[in-house]
Amino acid sequence: METRSIIITAGGIGKRMGADQPKQFLELLGRPVLIHTLERLYHFVPGSQLVLTLPEQYIEDWKELCTQYDCHIEHLVVAGGEERYHSIKNALEVCTGDIIAVHDGVRPLVSKATIERLFDAVVSHKAVIPVVEIKESLRRIDHVTSQAVQRSAYRIVQTPQVFHASVIRNAYNIHFHDAITDDASLVEESGEAIYLVDGNEENIKITTPSDLAVAMLFLSK
Amino acid sequence: METRSIIITAGGIGKRMGADQPKQFLELLGRPVLIHTLERLYHFVPGSQLVLTLPEQYIEDWKELCTQYDCHIEHLVVAGGEERYHSIKNALEVCTGDIIAVHDGVRPLVSKATIERLFDAVVSHKAVIPVVEIKESLRRIDHVTSQAVQRSAYRIVQTPQVFHASVIRNAYNIHFHDAITDDASLVEESGEAIYLVDGNEENIKITTPSDLAVAMLFLSK
Repeated sequence: METRSIIITAGGIGKRMGADQPKQFLELLGRPVLIHTLERLYHFVPGSQLVLTLPEQYIEDWKELCTQYDCHIEHLVVAGGEERYHSIKNALEVCTGDIIAVHDGVRPLVSKATIERLFDAVVSHKAVIPVVEIKESLRRIDHVTSQAVQRSAYRIVQTPQVFHASVIRNAYNIHFHDAITDDASLVEESGEAIYLVDGNEENIKITTPSDLAVAMLFLSK
Repeated sequence: METRSIIITAGGIGKRMGADQPKQFLELLGRPVLIHTLERLYHFVPGSQLVLTLPEQYIEDWKELCTQYDCHIEHLVVAGGEERYHSIKNALEVCTGDIIAVHDGVRPLVSKATIERLFDAVVSHKAVIPVVEIKESLRRIDHVTSQAVQRSAYRIVQTPQVFHASVIRNAYNIHFHDAITDDASLVEESGEAIYLVDGNEENIKITTPSDLAVAMLFLSK
């Protein structure tokens, strides 16, 4: 079987949260968000190499949290770079898997079914990502005006995003972007087609206090 | 001052909810969703004519709910048509306001600030809608392929959508659509520009049991 590496990005310093701690360290039902995420990936993708990117200044805090919350899951910690792009590039240096996934540290609610769909599909596709439908009307802004667009033609993109190692390495070697929001768009620019599978609605990205409350609700169900 | 009518659409029969009752009648902290919505609009837009569209078969149930939950807010009830389009058209027949707003019955969480932004803007614009930013990456589907698009160029559309009466009447007179998801797109097709104001994140459309749980959380804060 092909080997797997999972990069968990936790580069943010949580300005939007308005909290003392970065959002990935905030507690969700008694455990930090990032520990939930790490544990979930460990259980759902057994045998993977887990690589966590963290801002340099939080690495010590993280180690203390792992001790404090009794989390002994083996993982590598890589110092994040200036931008998300650099963090992933640093993490890729230590990844050994044939398949490399990238997952947001603040998405602790990815389901087992989503993970299975992703890893099943990556057998025959080189770049696979989870998406969900948009339930509300959508408009596109065009300088000063805007137009209604068909929401059925759009999808919200989640993570993990899963790639053949050569594909993501290639994308990160030939391109630089200071503001990429997901890896699939970079891989796409390198010429690879992106294959979509269904994500799960609960797999939200925790970026505001409301998101944290919603996540709490989903997690306690 | 200009007079105001607010059409509250509650045409759905709630198949997605998997409940016995249509979703607008489900309880949110002890009161049906639709009663929350009605009460909120009554308080936030005082003096408005309130017009509710409901499927014919639910009109009696609704009247009983109003009695049961002690809701004595004056409002008209109009039988919904086959499609949302027909329901609004029926409701427009009885609207008397110079300004006509259309609001989803399953959005009980619109804020007072959103309402104020809308009605302030409609003084100088003929069609005004609330929108919020998209926090996650977005892709556009194009038959078998898909492409990343810039999320910053898109907005999620909410309600109430607020129009000069002549503008929405005109749009509904000259166009028919069997699958419109919002009034702004119809008004836009009639040649009017749509003015956007900030909505509020909590103003979600309740369409699934998860949404109901999230709404409960927002409402209890």
